[in-house]
Amino acid sequence: MIHNLLKDKKVILASASPRRKKIFELLSVKALQMPANIKEDQSYKNPRKLVLHHAKNKVRHIRSQVDNDYLIIGADTIVYHKKDILEKPRDRYQAAEYLTLLSSSHHYVYSGIAIAYKNQIVSDYEKTKVFFNEICPEDIAEYVNTQEPMDKAGAYGIQGFGSQFIQKISGCYFNVMGFPISKFYILLLNMLKADQ
Amino acid sequence: MIHNLLKDKKVILASASPRRKKIFELLSVKALQMPANIKEDQSYKNPRKLVLHHAKNKVRHIRSQVDNDYLIIGADTIVYHKKDILEKPRDRYQAAEYLTLLSSSHHYVYSGIAIAYKNQIVSDYEKTKVFFNEICPEDIAEYVNTQEPMDKAGAYGIQGFGSQFIQKISGCYFNVMGFPISKFYILLLNMLKADQ
Repeated sequence: MIHNLLKDKKVILASASPRRKKIFELLSVKALQMPANIKEDQSYKNPRKLVLHHAKNKVRHIRSQVDNDYLIIGADTIVYHKKDILEKPRDRYQAAEYLTLLSSSHHYVYSGIAIAYKNQIVSDYEKTKVFFNEICPEDIAEYVNTQEPMDKAGAYGIQGFGSQFIQKISGCYFNVMGFPISKFYILLLNMLKADQ
Repeated sequence: MIHNLLKDKKVILASASPRRKKIFELLSVKALQMPANIKEDQSYKNPRKLVLHHAKNKVRHIRSQVDNDYLIIGADTIVYHKKDILEKPRDRYQAAEYLTLLSSSHHYVYSGIAIAYKNQIVSDYEKTKVFFNEICPEDIAEYVNTQEPMDKAGAYGIQGFGSQFIQKISGCYFNVMGFPISKFYILLLNMLKADQ
């Protein structure tokens, strides 16, 4: 299990996200949280390449600041809707605009994950399809008022009030929350095996 | 949104489940929790009929004890694997046996939900397909040791350590956790419209 693989390691979570912190808590993984303030590269139009690039940049950024016996974990999540990449909304108006786009429609959530440990950097990504019910304009306005959409890619949180708008998903739930747990487990296991 | 539909109602959650309580909290729904100790009927072999029967029995059980201006919500969740209904494991050995069955396989989670309000009782169900990765025997033993499997249908919790074994799902995540939120929203909305 993940917490056993990590129990003797000094772990850094290269992210400021409270959702990722919560996921680490539910897995009983102790990690130092160090946000990696990387410059986000807008030139990638391919969602898979974008999240992998950002996740790797986050761990590289922290790698340059700490000893290489720290195991550093980075992740990046975006919402991809009809060839548009939706990141965190700028303001309430953009949040309402994003939610109007997502209503009665489906989109994909991509997360890239990267692990840096000793001289290795490994990475992988996950993709989940999310289907929204129709969200009436009153619900969009109320939901924006809760503030929940403001710090989240695509302007919704699957683990909060946003849950009531989601008809179904196809793929990994935790990927939509911002950290694909079972994909991470496999990546970590293979990396540590290669390290032995 | 759900908490607005319920804010002027006296709500009872007819369940002892801490997961359902947590879901109500994340939706900001205030409810009195009253476990309905119904006799579980083992004669149903059809998972859909079984969960609907149990959910309705739970709200009927509470209905008989309180005034009819209380809005009572009941739910029942089971795991269905190759025509076998897996409920909560009896003991550690049965938990390990269930997890061995679920490893490298898929199963279905069914939840029935029922709402009793004034003279109405309405109900519906949700079904989610869950795919497990291979879980090695060491992980099964360790997971059983965490105690997490013991009070859960199918011997796993998707929202805890169990998350790392789940490759993907197809359907509603909260259904697997024990309460299908978006299906409940639609059921509640239609019931209250009919009541007006």
